[in-house]
Amino acid sequence: MNINILNDLSYGMYIISTKYMNKNVGCFVNTVSQITSENPIISVSINKSNYTNEALNIGNKFAISILSEKTDSQLIGKFGFFSSKDTDKFDGIEYSEICGIPVVTNNICGYLICEVINIIDCETHNIVLARVIDGEKLTDNIPMTYKYYHEVIKGKVPKTAPTYKKEKVEVKNMGKYVCKICGYVYDNSKEEIKFEDLPDSWVCPLCGVPKNMFEKVEE
Amino acid sequence: MNINILNDLSYGMYIISTKYMNKNVGCFVNTVSQITSENPIISVSINKSNYTNEALNIGNKFAISILSEKTDSQLIGKFGFFSSKDTDKFDGIEYSEICGIPVVTNNICGYLICEVINIIDCETHNIVLARVIDGEKLTDNIPMTYKYYHEVIKGKVPKTAPTYKKEKVEVKNMGKYVCKICGYVYDNSKEEIKFEDLPDSWVCPLCGVPKNMFEKVEE
Repeated sequence: MNINILNDLSYGMYIISTKYMNKNVGCFVNTVSQITSENPIISVSINKSNYTNEALNIGNKFAISILSEKTDSQLIGKFGFFSSKDTDKFDGIEYSEICGIPVVTNNICGYLICEVINIIDCETHNIVLARVIDGEKLTDNIPMTYKYYHEVIKGKVPKTAPTYKKEKVEVKNMGKYVCKICGYVYDNSKEEIKFEDLPDSWVCPLCGVPKNMFEKVEE
Repeated sequence: MNINILNDLSYGMYIISTKYMNKNVGCFVNTVSQITSENPIISVSINKSNYTNEALNIGNKFAISILSEKTDSQLIGKFGFFSSKDTDKFDGIEYSEICGIPVVTNNICGYLICEVINIIDCETHNIVLARVIDGEKLTDNIPMTYKYYHEVIKGKVPKTAPTYKKEKVEVKNMGKYVCKICGYVYDNSKEEIKFEDLPDSWVCPLCGVPKNMFEKVEE
């Protein structure tokens, strides 16, 4: 058995959000599916340990923002690698209140407003079934897929291939630094500027935490 | 509310298959998601009116073939637009028997073998929860997405844009023909050969039925 074949399943990229205890809460998810076509029901699976999961009870409303290739990737880091329990993820984020729910709107394709109709216990996760009660298309942007996120955003391919090759030889094995929050790897051998020379104002391109949240990888 | 926003959800392309009443049965699905990571559980939703749905009871095993961009698109038509009740969909198809289950193998990325652990009733559809008990990666092909299928395969964009524009003017409104089985549209204004001039041996590029299964669209 090669468990890596699971990586070939295709997903989109979404932020689900709602109001909980008078706070705006939300998290990143990749498993949203339309289940029925008439009076549509969608499903979304969410880790039980996620704070937003507590807010998704039968009868409650939540939003799904459909991220596009133009959505700021730091937003994914913020919603994917922090907890709404102790962070206001909406601080500094472009969002609107729709039907009383905060909806992340930064370059998204559009959004759905859903009402929870059932919750299925599935070991570590819940599968939330919800009726779509509203939704709008906001842009013609291309929906971001999980594959695009991993290969294009996290992969960080240098822009100029010839330069890349030259530098690869010159600064090879000059060290790697990993973000303690989201796991993003800054590899000196693939960058134009060494990690040590980055300004203190530099932040993780994936989750947005400061440079001092990175630690050197021992090789 | 703009229901079209649901089209911006991202999916992969899969064929699920199993043995039922000593027959090989299967169908096309696009909603497969990994739910848990430890000892993984996946979910797949399937229309209750689908014959293959009858075969998916708790304890039963089935396969998921992960289609790639190189998978023959006629295979999608065959598994998507016919019923296993009265058609042997595996006739003439490249497949292997794995764990006693027929697995479609034509240029797929790989497959999963799953065992049904729960079935959730969701109006017109069932959500089948299943434990992954085996799986292999067969190729490094790019997984086919629903978007790719619609835009590249069904869209049938002509290869040479200048020719396309010229022909669009010359043969505009020359008629459209729609496949009665799968809904594929042959639009004379976008093709190099008019539908009427296609040889009788021509078949629907999507589901593989003969030319006489098309009917003219009145405009």
